[in-house]
Amino acid sequence: MKTDAPAAQRAATALGGGRLRAVIEGIAPQVDCGRYPIKRALGEQVRVEADVFTDGHDSVAAQLLFRRAEETSWHAVFMAPQGNDRWAASFTANALGTWHYCVRAWVDHFETWRRDLVKRRQAGQDLTSEFQRGAALVQAAAQRAQSRQLAQWAQTLADEAATMEARCRAAADESLHALMRAHPDPELVSQHPNVLAVTVDPLRARFSSWYEFFPRSATPDPHRHGTLRDCEARLPYVAAMGFDVLYLPPIHPIGRAHRKGANNRIEAEPGEPGSPWAIGAAEGGHKAVHPQLGTLEDLRRLLDSARALDIDVALDMAFQCSPDHPYVAQHPEWFQKRPDGSIQYAENPPKTYQDIYPFHFESPEWRALWRELKSVVEFWIAQGVRVFRVDNPHTKPFPFWEWLIGEVKTGHPEVIFLSEAFTRPKVMHRLAKLGFTQSYTYFAWRNTKQELIEYFTELAQGDAREFFRPNLWPNTPDILTEYLQFTGRAGFMLRATLAATLGASWGIYGPAFELMESTAREPGSEEYLDSEKYQQRHWDLDRPDSLKAYLTLLNRLRRDNAALQSDWSLRFHGVDNEALLCYSKCSEDRANCILCVANLDVHHAQSGWLDLDLEALGLDARQPFQAHDLLSGARFLWQGSRSFVVLDPAQGPAHVLLLRRRVRREQDFDYFL
Amino acid sequence: MKTDAPAAQRAATALGGGRLRAVIEGIAPQVDCGRYPIKRALGEQVRVEADVFTDGHDSVAAQLLFRRAEETSWHAVFMAPQGNDRWAASFTANALGTWHYCVRAWVDHFETWRRDLVKRRQAGQDLTSEFQRGAALVQAAAQRAQSRQLAQWAQTLADEAATMEARCRAAADESLHALMRAHPDPELVSQHPNVLAVTVDPLRARFSSWYEFFPRSATPDPHRHGTLRDCEARLPYVAAMGFDVLYLPPIHPIGRAHRKGANNRIEAEPGEPGSPWAIGAAEGGHKAVHPQLGTLEDLRRLLDSARALDIDVALDMAFQCSPDHPYVAQHPEWFQKRPDGSIQYAENPPKTYQDIYPFHFESPEWRALWRELKSVVEFWIAQGVRVFRVDNPHTKPFPFWEWLIGEVKTGHPEVIFLSEAFTRPKVMHRLAKLGFTQSYTYFAWRNTKQELIEYFTELAQGDAREFFRPNLWPNTPDILTEYLQFTGRAGFMLRATLAATLGASWGIYGPAFELMESTAREPGSEEYLDSEKYQQRHWDLDRPDSLKAYLTLLNRLRRDNAALQSDWSLRFHGVDNEALLCYSKCSEDRANCILCVANLDVHHAQSGWLDLDLEALGLDARQPFQAHDLLSGARFLWQGSRSFVVLDPAQGPAHVLLLRRRVRREQDFDYFL
Repeated sequence: MKTDAPAAQRAATALGGGRLRAVIEGIAPQVDCGRYPIKRALGEQVRVEADVFTDGHDSVAAQLLFRRAEETSWHAVFMAPQGNDRWAASFTANALGTWHYCVRAWVDHFETWRRDLVKRRQAGQDLTSEFQRGAALVQAAAQRAQSRQLAQWAQTLADEAATMEARCRAAADESLHALMRAHPDPELVSQHPNVLAVTVDPLRARFSSWYEFFPRSATPDPHRHGTLRDCEARLPYVAAMGFDVLYLPPIHPIGRAHRKGANNRIEAEPGEPGSPWAIGAAEGGHKAVHPQLGTLEDLRRLLDSARALDIDVALDMAFQCSPDHPYVAQHPEWFQKRPDGSIQYAENPPKTYQDIYPFHFESPEWRALWRELKSVVEFWIAQGVRVFRVDNPHTKPFPFWEWLIGEVKTGHPEVIFLSEAFTRPKVMHRLAKLGFTQSYTYFAWRNTKQELIEYFTELAQGDAREFFRPNLWPNTPDILTEYLQFTGRAGFMLRATLAATLGASWGIYGPAFELMESTAREPGSEEYLDSEKYQQRHWDLDRPDSLKAYLTLLNRLRRDNAALQSDWSLRFHGVDNEALLCYSKCSEDRANCILCVANLDVHHAQSGWLDLDLEALGLDARQPFQAHDLLSGARFLWQGSRSFVVLDPAQGPAHVLLLRRRVRREQDFDYFL
Repeated sequence: MKTDAPAAQRAATALGGGRLRAVIEGIAPQVDCGRYPIKRALGEQVRVEADVFTDGHDSVAAQLLFRRAEETSWHAVFMAPQGNDRWAASFTANALGTWHYCVRAWVDHFETWRRDLVKRRQAGQDLTSEFQRGAALVQAAAQRAQSRQLAQWAQTLADEAATMEARCRAAADESLHALMRAHPDPELVSQHPNVLAVTVDPLRARFSSWYEFFPRSATPDPHRHGTLRDCEARLPYVAAMGFDVLYLPPIHPIGRAHRKGANNRIEAEPGEPGSPWAIGAAEGGHKAVHPQLGTLEDLRRLLDSARALDIDVALDMAFQCSPDHPYVAQHPEWFQKRPDGSIQYAENPPKTYQDIYPFHFESPEWRALWRELKSVVEFWIAQGVRVFRVDNPHTKPFPFWEWLIGEVKTGHPEVIFLSEAFTRPKVMHRLAKLGFTQSYTYFAWRNTKQELIEYFTELAQGDAREFFRPNLWPNTPDILTEYLQFTGRAGFMLRATLAATLGASWGIYGPAFELMESTAREPGSEEYLDSEKYQQRHWDLDRPDSLKAYLTLLNRLRRDNAALQSDWSLRFHGVDNEALLCYSKCSEDRANCILCVANLDVHHAQSGWLDLDLEALGLDARQPFQAHDLLSGARFLWQGSRSFVVLDPAQGPAHVLLLRRRVRREQDFDYFL
């Protein structure tokens, strides 16, 4: 479409498309006119809809075409009419990687004839010449298809010695119909010019529970630096809580020049470890392991042990350098020079970050830079890493990410990239469109009922859901929200519950989270006091007030209930109390429905009447159902759309209710399944 | 986008686009990803929006590019930020025909530098190297642009002898800024690949008042067949009522074979005139004038006389043939054959229309058929016709219309095509997308308050408004609605008022309308009894109960009030009475605002309280305003959003209120403008 599309279309039509009467429009889903792929997880259905119609009264037939990128020919499935000229069909994305799909359609003369024959017969019209017309249609298809079977059908229809009854039966025969549909005149088949794409990711792209900790603090001995071996020893702790992705901040050598001290002091004292995001030193850069953490071999052991617990280890991919990074000397052309010849450090005027050199992506040598950065990802993939959390992707050019992720996923469709783009909505969306598998969200700052309903309705129902997979984090090493600073244990429990139930993917930065670390560096800051970003911390994992048991419970509910493993079914229900938030999620077959009622008031008990959308929940207003609170174990017998709830923050932040429908057993007593 | 778009994009990026950091997305308006043009009337603004942003914190600049199809280079206008990364600019479509538009953008390093300089200065940073950086940016632009002026600016910025004050003033200079914006580095400018199109039509495409009558009945003498000369004599009658398009049913020779009699009897009696849609006889086909109507010369006289009254004469374009049409003998290949060798007549099984042969657009000879039909349109254009009402376009292939209209409008952008597609929504829309200037609508069957609000909100605010221009007809020769059959004079007045105020384009089939002809052929039918489609009728235009004075008033209000001359400003307001419908339209500058309150109950007086959206009306809640009923002359003094209305169908169907704001005159008494 680089030129005048309408004129080009007229020219194309005049050249040969003038008899293509079937129209295909409005194919959905698609992202930005097919410029970007939609996303699905392995095994999910790809349901495709399109408007298909033709001029006049003729019937049309439509097919959904689909294939894996590696395949050279299409699979086809017939689409079914949905009313108002909308057609639909589905295919199962049963392999990782890129798939393509498209729609084709044609005017179905045989179906038109078949349909009209019934009307003519009912009106008592003479059908002689009609059978000749039908036979001619079938005969033409027989020739196209070289089909003896069709030729025989043509004879049957044309047989004037046969009874009207027999010929009409033949006309209506479904196997004849199927044969005819399989052999349309190829010259009259329209195919939509847009071939659309879907990226099929591993299931964990959709359903994942992340846990982040700093390896430097993973040691049980507060007097020495944590190592990757320590991380390995901590795996059972993470696994026991039910997390399945362990994300480690950068594990590379840390720069010494302009190294930051504790609490982001401008210069470190001797012995201070510095920020792991100031990557690169004499010991190496993005492909090296920080010597204090251990060796590559230690990392591979960690990956192996994690895999045995069904945990993916996610590495941080922070494309920036400390002034000591080997790249700085080897490839000065990858950095921007200041007028005095020195290398430009990172800035957000008037703030300066002298310990960080950003790459200069407008460099004439950008191609070599891109290749090198790709080799970094490939290096860690070769070690067995399959999940990357990408630091600040919005400060690198969009074309770079599209290229990098596309190239990596062509060889490794199982790789997951989480975008840490805490930035403007359209930038976040763009990054997701061009390839990031998951994205951080604004969840951390959505606290009120109205905010939560608006934002999660957008995430679960908006167009962007086709490409944007949210990952909800109540905290990160950069984000100790004001909310968590001041709401105490109840606030931590509430935010964890919301994240774990509103999001099929969620994550926490621990042990700060389960130990309810809540002191900010200074008033008005979202930075942690004594942040692990700049120093080692010691955490007492066995503290009696730890939330680990509660987190374990949340993750178990997530594993046990398919409803909580995807986002699209999210639906909010009415409550006559602004402090209560009510929402549900159901599995696709609605066999598993979870209803959550959260008390957003961490200070007071709140009560109210729910106004449930029973239809959305698949419930019958005439039948009682059981609401089984999977957090407390309580079971409520409810019926109809209105039910009363009370939630006391001292007892817990929410009901997470499994809705059990009543079934009548043979023994003739009721049971709630 | 015929292949794998994401992979192709990655390849293109790797080839050279990797430094193009500015992103352009979501350009609006556009129809089906730019596959079809949007539509505007001559002199209207084309406001274009797009999301424009880049990675990181740099500033971006964006331009709207536009040109007429005939021009070879773009005009450019800078876009302005609207918040949330949305940018907008406009151009005026000041010539008929096709225009193109597009968006380009780049990272504006100079603006970033300028912006950051202020922050650095406020923070008290040393600016020495910053001025060197700025000077280098300006010097590079000076070289690109071969601009001495820019070179001088570069010197000023670099001049270390100058005061900080002077150099900062230079950095902030708006003329320097403008020069720098005019000369971005072309290698780093992104241009969106989609070039979009807008069809610019004459004003009458947007604002028109149609009147249809049958020439056969235009005679003052009921004993002879009406002629084109009679039509000419009736022009003043039409002009006096304020109509500006006179639409005539087909004026071609009428077939004799299977000619239909009065009230669609299967065979005509001798002397019966037949249906003018059964086109073609020994006397000629689509390029001939029915001898009983007169000659081509008579038509040209009619066109001339009409033009003198600022009336366009619209001809009917019905692409079908009577069995006597010369095409049937000359080009049997353009028609479908039945198995017995006869030509296939029109059918909608089990109904048959033996007097009509449809063209066979799937014929191998479709190209010659298309060319011939195009020559028909060109023939009438050569006679001076500029408006065509196209009969049943939805029964001919879509590619044909796109080609035909596109070809015709390339040479004659002033031509207007009205689509008579009373069919399914998506088919109507498709015809509008591919070129029809205006379209009939479902208005005739939308009667209740809820129906009207839903349908007109869709027409005025829905995406389709970019290409679908509604034309509202309370009746046509095919449509005497049940509503008009049973609601009498009040019903006719109400439907005319709704059409003339809800639609910038409307039309009636007269004199049946103004004489309130309301008898159906049989119960349950929408056909007129003794329809002019099959027989000549005599109408007494001077009947005292004629609605002609009321229609004259409606059209005068339309001419006097810019608010009624376009559709997009339509807005519905609340009324606490289901029988009252309240809506407003304003001119773009809101200098002219019309508020309509219609009583949908033709039997009883109804009253209620309006709940006006004052902001939409540009009214100040603290100031009284005058609501001047242009139908009755009454003036109401209102203030605030709530006002009381009473409407009695015996008095009239509606208020059409000009809202007059109060102005304070120098003489110090108030006046309502």
